[in-house]
Amino acid sequence: MELYNYFRSSASWRVRIALALKGLQYDYKPVHLRRNEQFQESYAAVSAARLVPLLRDGDAVITQSMAIIEYLDETHPEPPLLPADPVGRARVRSLAYDVACEVHPLNNLRVLRFLVHDLKLSEDDKNRWYRHWVETGLETVERQLAAQPSTFCHGESPTLADCVLVPQVMNAQRFDCRLEHVPNVRRVFDACLQLPAFADTQPSRCPDAEA
Amino acid sequence: MELYNYFRSSASWRVRIALALKGLQYDYKPVHLRRNEQFQESYAAVSAARLVPLLRDGDAVITQSMAIIEYLDETHPEPPLLPADPVGRARVRSLAYDVACEVHPLNNLRVLRFLVHDLKLSEDDKNRWYRHWVETGLETVERQLAAQPSTFCHGESPTLADCVLVPQVMNAQRFDCRLEHVPNVRRVFDACLQLPAFADTQPSRCPDAEA
Repeated sequence: MELYNYFRSSASWRVRIALALKGLQYDYKPVHLRRNEQFQESYAAVSAARLVPLLRDGDAVITQSMAIIEYLDETHPEPPLLPADPVGRARVRSLAYDVACEVHPLNNLRVLRFLVHDLKLSEDDKNRWYRHWVETGLETVERQLAAQPSTFCHGESPTLADCVLVPQVMNAQRFDCRLEHVPNVRRVFDACLQLPAFADTQPSRCPDAEA
Repeated sequence: MELYNYFRSSASWRVRIALALKGLQYDYKPVHLRRNEQFQESYAAVSAARLVPLLRDGDAVITQSMAIIEYLDETHPEPPLLPADPVGRARVRSLAYDVACEVHPLNNLRVLRFLVHDLKLSEDDKNRWYRHWVETGLETVERQLAAQPSTFCHGESPTLADCVLVPQVMNAQRFDCRLEHVPNVRRVFDACLQLPAFADTQPSRCPDAEA
């Protein structure tokens, strides 16, 4: 398998975690988003959205981090990244989407670029925007973790929800977002970072990492 | 089952389509987002994110439209809303996420409110923002539909991808977005609207519809 990704893309990191949890080997293919390599012809020809991550598995080309993780879970079921019962699966997906659909889309590189370059938002307003969605989004996750606490987001082993939450929390730290109000989120984050699948795949340890 | 939703919420419509495709009955519980009913105590007590849609199925409370649809597909498998093969399932989910993670989160009510009320964006800039994400996001979907054309997004029966695409296209029409560049998207939209599961659940036909 080949994973096209960028060290700082949190959607890319989600997939690196899932691959590591399943013990799957892959070739790391860097795509430098800040240098706009995603728009180069060779990459744009395979990636309809000109985004990372993208997984090549034989003839299959799969985009969108959560579609990739669900695919990996279906084709390599052990260890499972979703619980067995439908209500548990729904809870895990819902927690993942609370980050992947309500927080991350508002704060990724191309959106911040549009706010600053096209809509001429000030750096202060951009940061206010960023923190607002992170802080309110993580509060949503916190309420659910507090209502049904466990070592990881759902139960005693990592799931899709942890793959999505951990990169978002690391971004929150990088942008000085408030995290005092989300103690369960921080607790789960710390538990995950104890595991090599999370720690060894973090941005700073990627082949294309920059200071 | 009870579905909490708002006629104009396109995430709510996704779930109404899925329920209709599966022929499932439910109680329609309106939550008026513009009147901020999602923040009222009775609703906020069950909805961690204070968002719609939310499905109650017995004791289970499920949030996030795509988690709800996956849950319905697992608990009521016929007709399936995902294909049987893992690569096909990944393609359908990826198409759905291309809208649900790259377009819709940028343009929902609370985001537009923040842009206008908190960041003081002009009406013109707000509309430019809205159209930019719709037009580029649908272009991503278009490339994939053009590369592998079929009656619906994937194959000859509707899937999760159609449940997500159709409400987004209707929003695009409402906000006068450009659609000439996405002929396959328009074709699939038209095919879906021929089906009662799509036509009969559209916003204007909801119990809480307003002019």
